[in-house]
Amino acid sequence: MSAGLADLSLAELRRALRARETTALAVTEAVLARVQERDRRVHAFATVTAEAALTAARAADAALARGNAGPLAGLPVAVKDLMAVEGVVRTNGSMAFEGDAPASTDATVVSRLRAAGAVVVGTTHLHELAFGPTGVNPGLGTPTNPWAADRVPGGSSSGSGAAVASRLVPAALGTDTGGSIRIPASFCGISGLKPTYGRVSRAGVTPLSWTLDHVGPLARTAEDAALLLGVLAGHDPADPTSARVAVPDYVGLLERGLPGVRIGVPRGDCLAVADPEVVHAFDRALADLRDAGATVTDVALPTLTPLTAAALGAIILTEASAALEPLIGARRERLGLETNVYFEFAKVVTARHYVAAQRLRTRLYEEMRAVLERVDLLATPGTVLPAPRIGELQVLLDGVEVGTTDAITRLTGPFNLTGLPALALPCGFTRGRLPISLQLVGRPFAEADVLAVGHAYQRATDWHRRLPPD
Amino acid sequence: MSAGLADLSLAELRRALRARETTALAVTEAVLARVQERDRRVHAFATVTAEAALTAARAADAALARGNAGPLAGLPVAVKDLMAVEGVVRTNGSMAFEGDAPASTDATVVSRLRAAGAVVVGTTHLHELAFGPTGVNPGLGTPTNPWAADRVPGGSSSGSGAAVASRLVPAALGTDTGGSIRIPASFCGISGLKPTYGRVSRAGVTPLSWTLDHVGPLARTAEDAALLLGVLAGHDPADPTSARVAVPDYVGLLERGLPGVRIGVPRGDCLAVADPEVVHAFDRALADLRDAGATVTDVALPTLTPLTAAALGAIILTEASAALEPLIGARRERLGLETNVYFEFAKVVTARHYVAAQRLRTRLYEEMRAVLERVDLLATPGTVLPAPRIGELQVLLDGVEVGTTDAITRLTGPFNLTGLPALALPCGFTRGRLPISLQLVGRPFAEADVLAVGHAYQRATDWHRRLPPD
Repeated sequence: MSAGLADLSLAELRRALRARETTALAVTEAVLARVQERDRRVHAFATVTAEAALTAARAADAALARGNAGPLAGLPVAVKDLMAVEGVVRTNGSMAFEGDAPASTDATVVSRLRAAGAVVVGTTHLHELAFGPTGVNPGLGTPTNPWAADRVPGGSSSGSGAAVASRLVPAALGTDTGGSIRIPASFCGISGLKPTYGRVSRAGVTPLSWTLDHVGPLARTAEDAALLLGVLAGHDPADPTSARVAVPDYVGLLERGLPGVRIGVPRGDCLAVADPEVVHAFDRALADLRDAGATVTDVALPTLTPLTAAALGAIILTEASAALEPLIGARRERLGLETNVYFEFAKVVTARHYVAAQRLRTRLYEEMRAVLERVDLLATPGTVLPAPRIGELQVLLDGVEVGTTDAITRLTGPFNLTGLPALALPCGFTRGRLPISLQLVGRPFAEADVLAVGHAYQRATDWHRRLPPD
Repeated sequence: MSAGLADLSLAELRRALRARETTALAVTEAVLARVQERDRRVHAFATVTAEAALTAARAADAALARGNAGPLAGLPVAVKDLMAVEGVVRTNGSMAFEGDAPASTDATVVSRLRAAGAVVVGTTHLHELAFGPTGVNPGLGTPTNPWAADRVPGGSSSGSGAAVASRLVPAALGTDTGGSIRIPASFCGISGLKPTYGRVSRAGVTPLSWTLDHVGPLARTAEDAALLLGVLAGHDPADPTSARVAVPDYVGLLERGLPGVRIGVPRGDCLAVADPEVVHAFDRALADLRDAGATVTDVALPTLTPLTAAALGAIILTEASAALEPLIGARRERLGLETNVYFEFAKVVTARHYVAAQRLRTRLYEEMRAVLERVDLLATPGTVLPAPRIGELQVLLDGVEVGTTDAITRLTGPFNLTGLPALALPCGFTRGRLPISLQLVGRPFAEADVLAVGHAYQRATDWHRRLPPD
């Protein structure tokens, strides 16, 4: 029975808890047992907060019994280890922070989870300082991609991706600066949502790039992502970039279905250089969406070229070195080589490059805004390639050798540059059984549209139910 | 009589026109005669649009006769020669643009002037590409400071400043990126208003730095500036940075007087290194404001240091080179040496410097915003020194040698960085009879406050009536 509980989705657990078929304590114990059993191999967790989780589970059971339980009562969630969790040392994915004092307060998103009754079970590993998309972390260890141990899990929210995909925990929070939620979701075969810029508070979350950072959920389904987003979203006075935009009932809006939805595909601009197996699975996903009632048309986004990676890089390098400098200080020497190389790169990015990148960003946004007047959503693959091998610095795509980081972020980064909500969800496998993903992108603050179409797709298909070997 | 007309303020001309004591045609002829007589010496005008001005004057007289005249009917205005004026070649202060085709449309501010009945009499010289605060222009010639021919007129709106101060025209438009309206106003002894960022459209105006550029009036009095601002202000769909903020009746709000107005003086932070004669005149202006009913208190703006000049410089260099590159193109070799040196400087500004400058800007804004909750306005001198000698690259201030550009923009630039409305107006003279100015700064979009206090000050004093030798 405990094995079964740890395999359920948030929505399934929620139903079972409210039907009194199980208890929050039993769910939490099952999840903690699963972590205990598997995390030695998966290496997803930085800290497991077992005591606090059991206390929270008992409180959730009491609230469920009283009938005043929050929307996430008794549901286990892990959070990326760059979010403040009271009493936990925040490593930010780096040995340089080990030995720091534990946090004295929660990040806003963590306190929102707790206020909704969620059971925070611990913190998950990440690419050092969230500064990279593979999840490879020589210092604190690389979480295991459950589909192939020689492949990267994807990052930077690598531990959150691996933990959910390996069924250690039904859902986890991540952050996404160039794809750091959607990339581990794509490579691990789960669902990951980057909300609109400003939709979710970043207070208490270590910054990487203040104009690109987003917080969002990784989960088994679009439905679970909707459940979490409803709790996470909303204005936070502690985060001056958080938006004052009303939060809709994302779960209630899931069942609108697909008929009449217009989906635009920037095929010529986003699939120019992509793995043929990815293109094949993506085309089948489009056919499934069409069969389910959507109309699918080609659209043009001429600014969406491989060069957007250069813009993304210039902005992240610059803002990260400016934002992290005071935090790093004397820790500099204890950072990993890759991160130190990035900080060295940052010194030679010119202001002209930075403003050229910001200007490209404006142009890309205007282009997407215009296209999204004619269609409701954009669809692309989440990544143009499946998870590359660990240590592979260049990949061959359509016969062209491409830097791994640029290749991985090619289709996620543009939606950090423009801040639009984007959901990655599984849509197939390579012949070698590596997950392939579909990305759905909506208008600003139209997460409900993205989630409803993702939900309809998951009603019509079962890729999200495929399980990796235990 | 024609000499007399050219000496009147906009408000005086307006009253005389509406009382039918004169005609728009007589006013325009007087102004054109004055330009003809004096501009060979003053060198303020790039192009005089005599024919179009006379046609506009006749139309204004007809409208006045019909009783449907616009608010500026028959009032002569010149515009800085980086604003598009239909039929006129826009030099942007540079020989590199001579021989260009004449503009086929008007800049938004020019068409607003015309729609209000104003008579556009021509375009005025400027610092090359508005890229410098002295107004010295070896290529197209330097307008003459009417108070001292060996002193700079101030720039970059040098021709607008010299034209108004030499009574060639009662008012002119300028642009202000680091002080380019307020500096020529200060050095030439007239009134110049930089409105809030976004208050006045920049469509059709050659950009220098898109996060710092403002368009505004130079005139004899705060009252005239109010009259012009009422016509210039307001949203423009052609300028995405223009604000959707209602435009109040600036002239109607002028008479509120001073009693109860709280003025904050960042004395320690803005007068640390300043010419003693400037400090003396500024203190007397504060005493006059106090006598007229204002309360004056010291406030602290610790981020307002001489280092803000470095932030201003990094932003202008970077944005100017990005924004002007497509415009300059093959003209590069025909630009002056100073401008070419700036473009070379721009190449080595790092992205880290640029974002550090933008972050300083946020801090400075937050500091000013907090202070402006406790006081209604800030007051500083417009410049910490009177007009330096032409060709003087370093100036001695309080025994410290300072770069002339940094010294000139020290107290104007911070309000470009923060976008707050700022009015410079004459408040005294050095023993050598060089004008000294007072700067009044308000909350965002509170131009009415700034103008009302400036008007009250000009009611109580007569510095703005002092005339340079003809």
